[in-house]
Amino acid sequence: MSRLKNDTFLRALLRQPTAYTPIWLMRQAGRYLPEYRETRKRAGSFLDLCKSPALACEVTLQPLARFDLDAAILFSDILTVPDAMGLGLYFAEGEGPKFERPLTDEWEIRNLSVPDPGLELAYVIDAVAEISRALDGSVPLIGFAGSPWTLACYMVEGGASDDYRKVKTLAYSRPDLIHHILDVTAQAVGAYLNAQIEAGAQAVMIFDSWGGTLAENAYRALSLAYIERVIAGLTREREGRRVPSIVFTKGGGPWLEEIAHCGADAVGLDWTMDIGRARALVGERVALQGNLDPAILFAPPEVVAAEAGKVLEAFGPHPGHVFNLGHGISQHTPPESVGALVETVHAWRR
Amino acid sequence: MSRLKNDTFLRALLRQPTAYTPIWLMRQAGRYLPEYRETRKRAGSFLDLCKSPALACEVTLQPLARFDLDAAILFSDILTVPDAMGLGLYFAEGEGPKFERPLTDEWEIRNLSVPDPGLELAYVIDAVAEISRALDGSVPLIGFAGSPWTLACYMVEGGASDDYRKVKTLAYSRPDLIHHILDVTAQAVGAYLNAQIEAGAQAVMIFDSWGGTLAENAYRALSLAYIERVIAGLTREREGRRVPSIVFTKGGGPWLEEIAHCGADAVGLDWTMDIGRARALVGERVALQGNLDPAILFAPPEVVAAEAGKVLEAFGPHPGHVFNLGHGISQHTPPESVGALVETVHAWRR
Repeated sequence: MSRLKNDTFLRALLRQPTAYTPIWLMRQAGRYLPEYRETRKRAGSFLDLCKSPALACEVTLQPLARFDLDAAILFSDILTVPDAMGLGLYFAEGEGPKFERPLTDEWEIRNLSVPDPGLELAYVIDAVAEISRALDGSVPLIGFAGSPWTLACYMVEGGASDDYRKVKTLAYSRPDLIHHILDVTAQAVGAYLNAQIEAGAQAVMIFDSWGGTLAENAYRALSLAYIERVIAGLTREREGRRVPSIVFTKGGGPWLEEIAHCGADAVGLDWTMDIGRARALVGERVALQGNLDPAILFAPPEVVAAEAGKVLEAFGPHPGHVFNLGHGISQHTPPESVGALVETVHAWRR
Repeated sequence: MSRLKNDTFLRALLRQPTAYTPIWLMRQAGRYLPEYRETRKRAGSFLDLCKSPALACEVTLQPLARFDLDAAILFSDILTVPDAMGLGLYFAEGEGPKFERPLTDEWEIRNLSVPDPGLELAYVIDAVAEISRALDGSVPLIGFAGSPWTLACYMVEGGASDDYRKVKTLAYSRPDLIHHILDVTAQAVGAYLNAQIEAGAQAVMIFDSWGGTLAENAYRALSLAYIERVIAGLTREREGRRVPSIVFTKGGGPWLEEIAHCGADAVGLDWTMDIGRARALVGERVALQGNLDPAILFAPPEVVAAEAGKVLEAFGPHPGHVFNLGHGISQHTPPESVGALVETVHAWRR
């Protein structure tokens, strides 16, 4: 078993007792940090940054140098997988991610194949290995991927969407084709996460950013079913240590009890649902990760502390809570707010 | 009591037995109809259309001429109220609604006052009266307003937002100011809805489009509390007939049981929550309105019919269901899909 100085995060995910509530933040390495903006400028584009293992490692470590966080998360993007499938990812200035070759024709869908993480995604796997070496057992490293449904949304829409018209039209008109995309993508995501685990990721998270745009029965069939399949195929243990998994469906509050049965060790909660009520619903089945409204970090430090305290109180004294925001941290967040948050969370149970 | 040939919608809202499940669609008078686009062209801007009682009446009636819908809804916009409060509503091409004078300074917030619906909003009240005369008792007319929180979002942000940074910063940093805005806006919305009822609206709906962006305790304090206040002040009966109220919080699924206690007769559901499960949670307390995913209308008519059937089956044979989409109809919807939907819903219980 590899040395790990701080395993609080991993223990909390497995609902084992911990001395305090661990905390990390979605998108903790990002634009709200001046040092990130510096590195990003040096890298060129966002994608250049993702594709350089050395720079991805550098920005992954930046928030850990500032704040006493209990986990690092690989700096990357969920769309590396469809990019490796040949769709041609690019970022149009101020418009978010786009694909040069979105899936429009049946033959393109039929031709999809599972990329080899060691080839087409080698730059990510190399970054994981480099970060893992640099962390040197200080805190665990989280690997991640997008959920098959979320990736399918981008692959069919060609970018972000506000109504998911193309992908839902496909889903309701040609279920055979959407299930083919999801099937191939689920295999790709599974292989990708296992390669990250092999390279040193000690926990993995599946980001289901767009599952919450589906009707309940469609969520079950198109998103949750494929997340379950990915989780069932994950490497369970590495170097004698269990590798916990976290599933985060934004907007998944109404389906929490079902999500808690998907096989993941922990469920991420967005900020809309009271975490105490969530815990009452899931009981001892899974750990919960979340769920402060990221907008609270715009308020003065004493408000941040008070609101974080409410989340901690709501979850209560049970094991199995990883503190986080309910969504990625905003680029407009004052770094001082993050400092106040981390201190409050760490001090709470001590 | 005024004559009403088809009161199925009103009876369903009051959970009285009906011969079939009534249906209307959010944004049923809109861009997916070629005749709407014609009138809109004649009117000039969207706002010109809203401000002409004759043209607003014309477009309100258009979907009823095509489809056997069980209710008409006033053609207007939720932002008429802040416009009447002096914020200067305008629509930038392709950018959605904006305010010339969003609330930025404390003095602007302290100076807010409740507009007189008979003066600053006379064009809406005149439209209600004109539509009511034109309908001549064929189907009920729904009046509507935005929820105080939703209006406050627009008033502080100055338009749509993807993170609600300004309004949430205000809410968490200066609770006194946000509550002042909500208090004045709740009075304005209440007076506005009562004036619509006085002019002929036979049911009213409160659109809480952005309540779902709040954390659970913030939703309770900033959105639901003010919706309750508006509902408590509504005219209960007019011309010997009860005037039912509907509350629709997009993304409100996790809070359904609380929303069902806000005093409204019916709760609108977005498409993310199974309506059968929703009914099991609210029981006999309120009627439910919803909740087909509007994207299903992009599928072939037989899929539309099958998916609508699932919603009807899920709700079951109880009284108290008004069929609707889970969100406004998309401008890209083929009108034939609406025809198929209305037929399916009407045929289901007959």
